[in-house]
Amino acid sequence: MNQLQQQYLTVRQRFEALCAPLRVEDYGLQAVPETSPAKWHLAHTSWFFEIFLLKEYLSDYTPWNGQFEVLFNSYYNGIGEQFPRAKRHLLSRPTVNEVYQYRQAIDECMIELLNQSDHSQYEEIVSRTVLGIHHEQQHQELFFTDLKYNLYQNPLYPAYQESGIDSSETTIDFEWLDMESGLYDIGFAQSHSEDTSFSFDNEHPRHKTYLEPYRIANRLVTNTEFAAFIADGGYRDSALWLSDGWATVQEQQWSAPLYWMKRDSEWYHYTLHGLQPITMEQPVCHISAYEADAFARWSGARLPSEAEWEVAAMSQSVSEQESLRLEPMSQNSEQSSWFNQVWQWTSSAYQPYPGFRTADGAIGEYNGKFMCNQQVLRGGSVVTPPGHFRPTYRNFFYPPDRWQYTGIRLAQDNNK
Amino acid sequence: MNQLQQQYLTVRQRFEALCAPLRVEDYGLQAVPETSPAKWHLAHTSWFFEIFLLKEYLSDYTPWNGQFEVLFNSYYNGIGEQFPRAKRHLLSRPTVNEVYQYRQAIDECMIELLNQSDHSQYEEIVSRTVLGIHHEQQHQELFFTDLKYNLYQNPLYPAYQESGIDSSETTIDFEWLDMESGLYDIGFAQSHSEDTSFSFDNEHPRHKTYLEPYRIANRLVTNTEFAAFIADGGYRDSALWLSDGWATVQEQQWSAPLYWMKRDSEWYHYTLHGLQPITMEQPVCHISAYEADAFARWSGARLPSEAEWEVAAMSQSVSEQESLRLEPMSQNSEQSSWFNQVWQWTSSAYQPYPGFRTADGAIGEYNGKFMCNQQVLRGGSVVTPPGHFRPTYRNFFYPPDRWQYTGIRLAQDNNK
Amino acid sequence: MNQLQQQYLTVRQRFEALCAPLRVEDYGLQAVPETSPAKWHLAHTSWFFEIFLLKEYLSDYTPWNGQFEVLFNSYYNGIGEQFPRAKRHLLSRPTVNEVYQYRQAIDECMIELLNQSDHSQYEEIVSRTVLGIHHEQQHQELFFTDLKYNLYQNPLYPAYQESGIDSSETTIDFEWLDMESGLYDIGFAQSHSEDTSFSFDNEHPRHKTYLEPYRIANRLVTNTEFAAFIADGGYRDSALWLSDGWATVQEQQWSAPLYWMKRDSEWYHYTLHGLQPITMEQPVCHISAYEADAFARWSGARLPSEAEWEVAAMSQSVSEQESLRLEPMSQNSEQSSWFNQVWQWTSSAYQPYPGFRTADGAIGEYNGKFMCNQQVLRGGSVVTPPGHFRPTYRNFFYPPDRWQYTGIRLAQDNNK
Amino acid sequence: MNQLQQQYLTVRQRFEALCAPLRVEDYGLQAVPETSPAKWHLAHTSWFFEIFLLKEYLSDYTPWNGQFEVLFNSYYNGIGEQFPRAKRHLLSRPTVNEVYQYRQAIDECMIELLNQSDHSQYEEIVSRTVLGIHHEQQHQELFFTDLKYNLYQNPLYPAYQESGIDSSETTIDFEWLDMESGLYDIGFAQSHSEDTSFSFDNEHPRHKTYLEPYRIANRLVTNTEFAAFIADGGYRDSALWLSDGWATVQEQQWSAPLYWMKRDSEWYHYTLHGLQPITMEQPVCHISAYEADAFARWSGARLPSEAEWEVAAMSQSVSEQESLRLEPMSQNSEQSSWFNQVWQWTSSAYQPYPGFRTADGAIGEYNGKFMCNQQVLRGGSVVTPPGHFRPTYRNFFYPPDRWQYTGIRLAQDNNK
Repeated sequence: MNQLQQQYLTVRQRFEALCAPLRVEDYGLQAVPETSPAKWHLAHTSWFFEIFLLKEYLSDYTPWNGQFEVLFNSYYNGIGEQFPRAKRHLLSRPTVNEVYQYRQAIDECMIELLNQSDHSQYEEIVSRTVLGIHHEQQHQELFFTDLKYNLYQNPLYPAYQESGIDSSETTIDFEWLDMESGLYDIGFAQSHSEDTSFSFDNEHPRHKTYLEPYRIANRLVTNTEFAAFIADGGYRDSALWLSDGWATVQEQQWSAPLYWMKRDSEWYHYTLHGLQPITMEQPVCHISAYEADAFARWSGARLPSEAEWEVAAMSQSVSEQESLRLEPMSQNSEQSSWFNQVWQWTSSAYQPYPGFRTADGAIGEYNGKFMCNQQVLRGGSVVTPPGHFRPTYRNFFYPPDRWQYTGIRLAQDNNK
Repeated sequence: MNQLQQQYLTVRQRFEALCAPLRVEDYGLQAVPETSPAKWHLAHTSWFFEIFLLKEYLSDYTPWNGQFEVLFNSYYNGIGEQFPRAKRHLLSRPTVNEVYQYRQAIDECMIELLNQSDHSQYEEIVSRTVLGIHHEQQHQELFFTDLKYNLYQNPLYPAYQESGIDSSETTIDFEWLDMESGLYDIGFAQSHSEDTSFSFDNEHPRHKTYLEPYRIANRLVTNTEFAAFIADGGYRDSALWLSDGWATVQEQQWSAPLYWMKRDSEWYHYTLHGLQPITMEQPVCHISAYEADAFARWSGARLPSEAEWEVAAMSQSVSEQESLRLEPMSQNSEQSSWFNQVWQWTSSAYQPYPGFRTADGAIGEYNGKFMCNQQVLRGGSVVTPPGHFRPTYRNFFYPPDRWQYTGIRLAQDNNK
Repeated sequence: MNQLQQQYLTVRQRFEALCAPLRVEDYGLQAVPETSPAKWHLAHTSWFFEIFLLKEYLSDYTPWNGQFEVLFNSYYNGIGEQFPRAKRHLLSRPTVNEVYQYRQAIDECMIELLNQSDHSQYEEIVSRTVLGIHHEQQHQELFFTDLKYNLYQNPLYPAYQESGIDSSETTIDFEWLDMESGLYDIGFAQSHSEDTSFSFDNEHPRHKTYLEPYRIANRLVTNTEFAAFIADGGYRDSALWLSDGWATVQEQQWSAPLYWMKRDSEWYHYTLHGLQPITMEQPVCHISAYEADAFARWSGARLPSEAEWEVAAMSQSVSEQESLRLEPMSQNSEQSSWFNQVWQWTSSAYQPYPGFRTADGAIGEYNGKFMCNQQVLRGGSVVTPPGHFRPTYRNFFYPPDRWQYTGIRLAQDNNK
Repeated sequence: MNQLQQQYLTVRQRFEALCAPLRVEDYGLQAVPETSPAKWHLAHTSWFFEIFLLKEYLSDYTPWNGQFEVLFNSYYNGIGEQFPRAKRHLLSRPTVNEVYQYRQAIDECMIELLNQSDHSQYEEIVSRTVLGIHHEQQHQELFFTDLKYNLYQNPLYPAYQESGIDSSETTIDFEWLDMESGLYDIGFAQSHSEDTSFSFDNEHPRHKTYLEPYRIANRLVTNTEFAAFIADGGYRDSALWLSDGWATVQEQQWSAPLYWMKRDSEWYHYTLHGLQPITMEQPVCHISAYEADAFARWSGARLPSEAEWEVAAMSQSVSEQESLRLEPMSQNSEQSSWFNQVWQWTSSAYQPYPGFRTADGAIGEYNGKFMCNQQVLRGGSVVTPPGHFRPTYRNFFYPPDRWQYTGIRLAQDNNK
């Protein structure tokens, strides 16, 4: 078994391990169009390998089930029609078992395909397989964010996992990191010509950006700090909000982060361990870009641009990046961490880097077509799979979205 | 075991038997707010016994799970808050197994309660138990209608049951039955003072209604006849439709009954046996009141009023009522049957009979509060449980509803 | 000038007189699809004569403007396409002056047509002209109800008319009128063979209905009585409401009749004279059928059926019917009046009388196609034109509608 | 009369002159929340001077009408409540005449205030007056765009103005202008210390931006070119569209620019001169950012960033900027013009420049709070008032918006 085969199987098996605590009934939940059922994630990630690899490169490959091409297509118009996103919860068939069989069959064919190192298009096969592995990792994160939101709808507040709560509270002191102005290179860089480390197309091309002098926080905003914003009437003061943000606050009746609720004047939140008291010194989480922006304004600060974030992250010791935890969920107190607590909203709209090009064909729909109306997040979260962190990584969601593990790192102009 | 205990268990066990062909994943489906998950029906019917009997009359009864009182309350404001109807599919917990355990526990307590014939309120206990049994039967019918609609959303068109299709085609000749004018008694009548046969409150009080001379069809409208209406442009001719009906046709883009689709110029429909060619001589089904009314107008006829229907049904031999089939689903060719093919839309709005009274308390919400905006249907369908038919039975749905087994029996004024 | 010509001109001129207090800007208002602009009413009533009379019977008639056929068609599919109802406020052209010119032109042609007593179809011309006159009167009432609702949207609360407020407060004592059971004839009756008095098709045919003994109130429910219902928590007690009514109360956040508001703990309401303190002994008005039904239930009474209402009205002295007031608006204290205060919700759904037939062609769409989902009102209101009252008159609106002048007369079963 | 007074009156009087062709009925139209009635624009621009100048700085000033503070507040939460935007068409009062009286009264007070050069806050008075003048100019442009959209709803297709159509067709040849990479200064610059030329806060601060080498079109995309995109199936090929853009195309059923329609296989469009054949060599107009982006992709090009646009515009001869036409409407053939044809969508999201600060108080809501979800447009259009053009001007609308005069200038990377 070669290294890529091993990497492939490791990531694929991790997804099934993550699902182990689920009941069959949990696999089908979908509260809103955005939060797909776990079963759908399991099937769609297999579909990705089937459509972009097996169907194209494995000779004599017969589709596992011809209708899956439509059922588990997420958004690839180049492949064809898609079953409506909002109705994914209505697919009781294939059953969970049948989806596991489908995964098994795809895995066997993929291992076979990855054996064919003499295949005339082996380079493309490797490249797409690596993309598929990272795609699977992205869906492992979505598995957690979607599951949390879906289970939360149930007044019984079921726990994904009973144990493993980390409620340690050691905050490091807040400090501004001073950053100098200058012309910086931004975007993913091959460290040397044989560097095979992965990056998405949207991290390219590496290009120059000029930054004014700025300051950036050494740690994330905490629940304590955010609770102060709430107590100060932050959700009722229109002057703190972007216009679209204020409209959302009114319409959605927001008065705290998603999952927060007050019981007997104490803050609780719903977690994958069920309903829990909030550990106040941990980083605030499940915040929209609007809330992040309003909190920053209230603090006399602002959000960093994605370039500011990247330059600052690059300048830090990267040792933290290696201390990834395998178990998801526990919010730990390493608020200084750039990568494994919460995604951090930037002030940057998600747009193509200068000179950005997409791949030809349906696979080119992966990232490029979403470069409008969304906001960039940087870093990574407790539910981001190990090995899926990168200082140049560009995550993106709509400004009102709150169901991801999203928080705040502050910045400021530095006009000494 | 007394007779009521036996009757109770028979009906309760039937529901579980009906669920046998389901996969765990099927139990949670809900495509629209109206079509509840099978699991919810199983739990709600148990909730009914728990809330209206055990909690009130069984001493020292401890609720199985206090939160179920909200989760499985359908619409009884008198009991309290209700979990939102549209979100029932989001309750992955309790699991299917846990719901079966809940049913088991309720059954044991109910058997115990029904043993207490010396209970000071035994008469009320019996009366409510009988109501609960008929309530359970109503949900057994909804189980089928909801499941069919929910499975239909899946392009794989899964079958509830593979076997048992009845595609026999023996139509009896169409005839008008002439009915005389006069003052008739309408509504349920005790045949004698000790008659314990059941009826719902909305079938009371028995009262006088004057009918002009009329004619009513000896059989139901067939698929062949309805296909002729379609072929004649019935869905495109506004002159045939009620104003609200025409608006619905435009908005919903109706061009055939629910579940119908044309493949290679043949009509197919989705059934609980999967996608099947339509047996054209069977009764047309899954028709809204608007379509029934438009078809009748196109035919130079009209729908019968509920009083006309009841008087006519009473005048027919009732032998057919006994030939109930245990297996649901197969549309048979006994179109002359009044009771076990399809519910028949009447021209009557669902309103209280003169002198109608509801029971005190939450149980009074059973029927009375729905007497507005709905239309009466009479008869019964292939998925109505055995023993749940009555000439005075008043079923009711909104005019645009199509997911029940609903069809057409024509009538006409008779001005010889 | 013959009598019909005079009657025609009287009614036509009345409409323009009613519009005299309006500013040009007021003519175009439309707050919701149901409340058409005054200008549209002026044009549509002319359109009715143009389409159903001039275009059909006046030789060499050239349409005033070919596009008006679409612009001012309300709902006659038999005539053709209709400009979307919700967008009528967007027709700034034709201007108000141009619409008056249109009316003038139609009037001249109509007078000419009505001169042609030797026309081969003169009988049909007369019959349609009379229908058109009554149609115009219906729109004169809608002119007031729509204008009131449209002006009400403006926080300046503009008055249609400054003077003419009647705030006299003389309530007659409440009494039940006892009515006997029996088989009654219901519907419009020609008094003798040459009787030319008008009635709509929906008041026909006259037919027999059996009534149980009942009691009906000698006067309308007053604002005082309704305020007691509010004070008693009527809008917060689900047990008083029909299910659809309760849903509407929640969704629309109803807590008082339309136009009511509390200022310094006194009730005010918006009227065509602007914002005014409520004269508490006058009849309650701007009530939906849901509120009427809930109030009746709270009172230990119910709404009368339309047959009960008609039989009772017929049994009363009709002198009151003659005391019609020309000026609209003032709610006077003659609560005993059956006809010129507020329309009275009945418990009857709007359905065809047994044997009902519509006219052929587009004109048959006048009433028949609305016989679904609506509720019958009987009587008449302060804004109903003089001469437009009839004990057999069937008005109809949807149960949640509140912008008409609608109130309550109670009834009860009479089981002495 | 000092210069500012003159400038004030000139701009104020221009607005009333622009309204001269309107009928009273036209002033109230509002088809969608975004397209305010002309009367509302006339009042709101006066409100701006009343609230931000008269009320604050003119001693003993009494508000013209206290309720106008709410009625004509657009979006300034710092001032207080706002009458709902979507209901502006429902304000028949104040009438058009009353609004003109209001304008007159405000003008008199403003002239008085601007006389007080010894006022302790005269500098702020001048600065706010200049802002108010530019604000009024922005609404003069919106007057045209909103009016056009509102009149367009009427199937009579009324013309704002009958004469003045420019259908000349002289296209200049398409050329790429090559632009060099480098670090550029972007944003408004005072040319010297006493320069009093106006700019909005969002054009500040001037800051450095690095640009890669690029090419930009010497002229705008023409109707001919856009028609080729349509003919090539551009609206049906998902591969050309951003994901949100494609969703909009499906949902809104777009198949051509706003106002375009085909008659007898010729393209027509609705204009302020009524329905007209399209002059094909003029610039394409009424395009959303999604359509601009899709067209650019189809062309093998892309949209310029706002920095690229600004640098290129600065590098061009500015003589064209002076040839402003007073009459709006005629699309002329000077497609090379950067400023007086159509606004040009850029690829840049509307975000604060580095170091951006808003003014304190409600006036700070002018621009800053909209810096999310919108896209920057550069240039100016035929309906932009004379003197309201600037190379650094940042206009902004949502990507799907089409009712402004918006078009396309192409760009490309330049990797020689």
